[in-house]
Amino acid sequence: MSLVVIGTVAFDAIETPFGKTDKIVGGSASYAGLSASYFYDKVKIVAVVGDDFHQSEIDDFNAHGINTEGLQVKKGEKSFFWAGKYHNDMNSRDTLVTDLNVLADFDPIIPDSYQDCEYLMLGNLTPQVQQTVIRRLAKRPKLIVMDTMNFWMNIALDDLLDTLKMVDVLTINDEEARQLSGEYSLVKAAAKILTMGPKYLVIKKGEHGALLFDKDSVFATPALPLAEVFDPTGAGDTFAGGFIGYLAKVGSINFNNMKNALIYGSALASFCVEKFGPERIKNLTQEEIAERVQQFVKLSKFEL
Amino acid sequence: MSLVVIGTVAFDAIETPFGKTDKIVGGSASYAGLSASYFYDKVKIVAVVGDDFHQSEIDDFNAHGINTEGLQVKKGEKSFFWAGKYHNDMNSRDTLVTDLNVLADFDPIIPDSYQDCEYLMLGNLTPQVQQTVIRRLAKRPKLIVMDTMNFWMNIALDDLLDTLKMVDVLTINDEEARQLSGEYSLVKAAAKILTMGPKYLVIKKGEHGALLFDKDSVFATPALPLAEVFDPTGAGDTFAGGFIGYLAKVGSINFNNMKNALIYGSALASFCVEKFGPERIKNLTQEEIAERVQQFVKLSKFEL
Repeated sequence: MSLVVIGTVAFDAIETPFGKTDKIVGGSASYAGLSASYFYDKVKIVAVVGDDFHQSEIDDFNAHGINTEGLQVKKGEKSFFWAGKYHNDMNSRDTLVTDLNVLADFDPIIPDSYQDCEYLMLGNLTPQVQQTVIRRLAKRPKLIVMDTMNFWMNIALDDLLDTLKMVDVLTINDEEARQLSGEYSLVKAAAKILTMGPKYLVIKKGEHGALLFDKDSVFATPALPLAEVFDPTGAGDTFAGGFIGYLAKVGSINFNNMKNALIYGSALASFCVEKFGPERIKNLTQEEIAERVQQFVKLSKFEL
Repeated sequence: MSLVVIGTVAFDAIETPFGKTDKIVGGSASYAGLSASYFYDKVKIVAVVGDDFHQSEIDDFNAHGINTEGLQVKKGEKSFFWAGKYHNDMNSRDTLVTDLNVLADFDPIIPDSYQDCEYLMLGNLTPQVQQTVIRRLAKRPKLIVMDTMNFWMNIALDDLLDTLKMVDVLTINDEEARQLSGEYSLVKAAAKILTMGPKYLVIKKGEHGALLFDKDSVFATPALPLAEVFDPTGAGDTFAGGFIGYLAKVGSINFNNMKNALIYGSALASFCVEKFGPERIKNLTQEEIAERVQQFVKLSKFEL
């Protein structure tokens, strides 16, 4: 049994009001995989990089117990590269560079050893590639979580809607939920999206927390109020990785476990934004995670 | 012992995507007073209206057990009038008319029978008038809650800062907290505002809920996700009224009771937006309130 994460493994160059980085490791599969690895010890990545991606960086994943057999390294090609600059409020950013490179014709390879996949995280990526991964798994996983973004709604909506029919949980942000549904009210948006395929919808609201919907219930978790958001890059992927990693750990899919998964995902995301790129979530201890989760309990618990 | 609410009692003409009203009763003291009256039976209003304000509307307050001895009726003058139009997203609005009328030279009269004030709600109004009310109370109330808005930060900041030194709790929205503190992070904003006078800060975030800060702790409550927001007018005042009304009812001021007060205030605000103006919060039952509060429990409770 394993948790397979498909997405991008890439280089990012990030500029925030606090500083800037050269090329550092980024990508949805990097963040989600690292995050999930704190909860589950059989995380396996499917992604593609160029030969500019060093072995030491792959070793970093392996050191977290992440299987990288499904990480293709394309000789003579370059890894996906994104450069962006955050505005002062950290809630908006400009994309400076997007070099697809190896991602332009990514054909995901599923090693035989990944066919035991029970939990599948479709990290943010072309919906067509997300779908290909589902089709290449001989047995339908017990749980498929799909993350996506407005970019794919704009340029590949039909593929996105097709993929959506095949998944159990969709994680998107509030503006994306509005765009996908055509409804401003998130309650109405959720009701509509839950007719498109997924049985559960997670709406990520950044500093305002997250909402979990199924057709009967709704659950809300606040985000941890932070004095500094150093770099929000990857927070959504980290959230998704923590979410599915926790579910893989507990092994049972129901609304109550999803609620807790939302808390654990939010806790991991709150670490992610404390340093540039994946630096903070590469170096967490179980004690730090447990302590952070207790901060969420303290933040939201009341006794009438 | 009583809960005195100072603020505006006024007429509003409201246009939303769902329809429009003629002049209906509005104003911060109307909403806060009505809301508080569901928790505490000795609510007393200080405000001013013109003789265009009908006795039947005053009777409505009295029917909720609200003492209106401090509601001045100015002969030959007109009540404060505001007209506004909400945009489709309900999060922004244009002010079409603001006629100060009787409010232009409002000199608040505190009847002798109000000198038993233990809880004082300074509803949104000129900070100078809010301060006058504090000064005219012979004995400092046990708890003073102040609501205000960006308008007063723009035109009367010094008065606002003076008044702030005299209060226990400030309730403002997130943008106002940022403006008042000059800090984007709400954690830093709160830390700064808590040096300006209040021991507690409530940050209202509309559809994203509310945060409560004291110098050691933070608590977050989500807003109830709603399918329709019919008219947001008065929701903030209703929240504040429910907040202080609940505290007056329990009679003891501490962080735990404030947390619950945040829930009750949020519950009342969630009713307010269901109909035009104060229509919904004029006609609530204790059963409806208890049921709504249980929805908040269900919305935010998790068991790790």
